[in-house]
Amino acid sequence: MKLLEERILREGQVRPGNVLKVDCFLNHQLDVELLDQIGQEFYRIFGQDGITKILTIEASGIAIACMTARHFGVPVVFAKKAKSKNIDGEVYTSVVHSYTYGKDYNITLAKKFLSPRDKVLIVDDFLANGKAMRGLLDVCNQAGVTVGGIGICIEKGFQPGGAELRAAGYKLASLAIVDHMDDTSLTFRQQ
Amino acid sequence: MKLLEERILREGQVRPGNVLKVDCFLNHQLDVELLDQIGQEFYRIFGQDGITKILTIEASGIAIACMTARHFGVPVVFAKKAKSKNIDGEVYTSVVHSYTYGKDYNITLAKKFLSPRDKVLIVDDFLANGKAMRGLLDVCNQAGVTVGGIGICIEKGFQPGGAELRAAGYKLASLAIVDHMDDTSLTFRQQ
Repeated sequence: MKLLEERILREGQVRPGNVLKVDCFLNHQLDVELLDQIGQEFYRIFGQDGITKILTIEASGIAIACMTARHFGVPVVFAKKAKSKNIDGEVYTSVVHSYTYGKDYNITLAKKFLSPRDKVLIVDDFLANGKAMRGLLDVCNQAGVTVGGIGICIEKGFQPGGAELRAAGYKLASLAIVDHMDDTSLTFRQQ
Repeated sequence: MKLLEERILREGQVRPGNVLKVDCFLNHQLDVELLDQIGQEFYRIFGQDGITKILTIEASGIAIACMTARHFGVPVVFAKKAKSKNIDGEVYTSVVHSYTYGKDYNITLAKKFLSPRDKVLIVDDFLANGKAMRGLLDVCNQAGVTVGGIGICIEKGFQPGGAELRAAGYKLASLAIVDHMDDTSLTFRQQ
């Protein structure tokens, strides 16, 4: 997606440890106009696939999921990273390792929001090692839902998550794939 | 807001400890069509107030903020509940006590996203004791921004947060105010 790649080049910042900061528009401050165009692009790719729900994980994924769900006319469900007192006992859980936060955490999702009749599109801001995505896929598997597709804003193509998901047969669309980055340059995969 | 009150009556569930569960449409599964109408209502109320940014706190607030920001044509900024390695050192911080999670937590917001020229609309799903809101207002105060208004989906009118904010002079709009609730009934304040 040209618009997203241009925005990454203009405002993204590379930090030590393969960190690509896009907090100006994607995951701290949010450019809702850009997110709307991202949602439109996901609809172009997955709009004919019978999607019944958009699934994501808090927190950054929620914005992308909402702006995508508008185009599909379906609800969003997001997995939570901490179990609150408010949540029912009836939840699916999975363990995720976060490289960003340097620790394992549980994700939870109320069972009542996914049924075997659902076909979900999973969306998120980043795909790198794919650990959060594995957690969401585990939840989908427990719920017996069909995964209709995976929509990612920025894939780090030099980390294994994307290749593994494609090898496993998922319909994965990453709107920008960064194949290489250092302090002075950033290369996108031709798509 | 009639539509929201009707939805709360239809799908909300009262739990011990003054908990009102609206996870079917507002903070776990998200009805984006309803959120869009909530955003439209906030625009009707605050649309002429010169708002430059929509401010909220992760996670549930993000969905409401995004669907509101579309109507205003301004960006969203959300405060984070945990400090990740990815965030710059240059952040505003405040301490918030969560009754839901039963503990204190830090909220952080990168300084670069708020300037004294900004006039923010703060939005969130719930207002009860107002602790999270106090944290956001503290951040606004540190940043020197003007708080143009506060937009809440559901206020628990029997808890002190709303009254305190009104007494402090804030333009506070709560789309549904629950003045009383128990297992068998739920009463909204006439507005």
